[in-house]
Amino acid sequence: MTGRDTGADLKPMPGESPVVVLVRPQLAENIGTAARAMANGGLFHLRLVAPRDGWPLERAWNASSGAGRILDSATVHATVADAVADCHRVFATCPRPRHIITQIRTARAAAEELVEVCQGRGLRSAVLFGPERTGLDNDDMAHADTWVRYPLNPDHMSLNLAQAVMILAYEWWNSAEDRTPPRQFLTHETRVATKGELEGFLSRLTNELDACGFLDNLAKRPGMVRNLRHWFQRGEVTEQELRTLHGVVTELSRGRMLRGRPV
Amino acid sequence: MTGRDTGADLKPMPGESPVVVLVRPQLAENIGTAARAMANGGLFHLRLVAPRDGWPLERAWNASSGAGRILDSATVHATVADAVADCHRVFATCPRPRHIITQIRTARAAAEELVEVCQGRGLRSAVLFGPERTGLDNDDMAHADTWVRYPLNPDHMSLNLAQAVMILAYEWWNSAEDRTPPRQFLTHETRVATKGELEGFLSRLTNELDACGFLDNLAKRPGMVRNLRHWFQRGEVTEQELRTLHGVVTELSRGRMLRGRPV
Repeated sequence: MTGRDTGADLKPMPGESPVVVLVRPQLAENIGTAARAMANGGLFHLRLVAPRDGWPLERAWNASSGAGRILDSATVHATVADAVADCHRVFATCPRPRHIITQIRTARAAAEELVEVCQGRGLRSAVLFGPERTGLDNDDMAHADTWVRYPLNPDHMSLNLAQAVMILAYEWWNSAEDRTPPRQFLTHETRVATKGELEGFLSRLTNELDACGFLDNLAKRPGMVRNLRHWFQRGEVTEQELRTLHGVVTELSRGRMLRGRPV
Repeated sequence: MTGRDTGADLKPMPGESPVVVLVRPQLAENIGTAARAMANGGLFHLRLVAPRDGWPLERAWNASSGAGRILDSATVHATVADAVADCHRVFATCPRPRHIITQIRTARAAAEELVEVCQGRGLRSAVLFGPERTGLDNDDMAHADTWVRYPLNPDHMSLNLAQAVMILAYEWWNSAEDRTPPRQFLTHETRVATKGELEGFLSRLTNELDACGFLDNLAKRPGMVRNLRHWFQRGEVTEQELRTLHGVVTELSRGRMLRGRPV
């Protein structure tokens, strides 16, 4: 793996991203939105098996939302066998397990395996998606060595074609390209405050609260101060926010001083 | 967690699945396809903030492909603040990080956290999705405690609204509901053959190949037999397939015998 697959040449080389094969797609819009989903997840190679309304179809480009170059490079094939003839591994998406003996994967496990096959072993792979209404038929499925079944609500499995492509593309991107840490704290220009900076603010706040009489109940004072400290510790306050909070305390205190309460 | 959330009552109870909030959605079709994606992933509670064309809209039901009851129960709100007033945690999806200090999660980490918040702690949570063209604005975002950013191709982040809902719903289902093993070998009525059954077939095959002269080169014979064994070991052959293979050997041998070659 020598860098990100940008689809620059849009020719499926072995060892790249998998080829998406839409088998007998019915609606041009779905071909376009499937291409858009492919681009979202870094898949660039599209093959069409016997599209119902022929090819090219302008409505596909209209629906592709900037992924037109994937459609420009798509190839049309008469049969599934022809579409996968140069591939080493073929996955097929299928919501319904039928009376077929086969290896089956979740979308995530399939994506991990595709990374291994394409990037680890340098082989060319394809993923088959069936027609909108019926899905892949048994003869289509017999061209695949592995099935992919998405874990989704069994009471509502009906998935739009582009949604099916989207999930595979999303999992591909997550397995192949992405190293985003799952949890981040975005601070942009500022940074998390140091405990010393926080302590400076908390001391000042306590002093001001003492001055205005908020902490006059000496029995309760330690608990109240501790509770305030807990809250300010919890939210990972930034240096910038701390400056704003200092300003808030200044302004609130000024009001008190103007009203003439003794400091 | 006492079982699967079927959305039976479609009232968002605390500790259930998160509420999906579409903020100022523009197209009725997108509201319908978003509801369909919600059903796919086991999300049932929909709230709409100031939908551009009003509500209800028949085209939303037409596009929802069986998820109409989610639309039937959707509530309309004038502001984001109103839509999330009864929620304890609010996540917001946002593709572009702006100059805001915030906690940020991948879709997967957000889903895990939603499970913890909803099912583990019994709180009510919401996830905000912005308008199609512009996404959530800064004032919308300020109602959220956590941002969600999907790891996707940075060169092509433009995501259809329903696709954005689909990925969240898919990750929710995978985190909350699904225990599908990532890899399975589906054998349906049959089962993987025992090594004894496989051995029976391989012995017979070897005998037949000896008989027809295929293994006459005695120097090469051990290697050839071993190679055949390797291939038949690799594919986890089932008991049913083994019977078919016995039949194949029988029929091929019969041809040879009919042609009169000595056994």
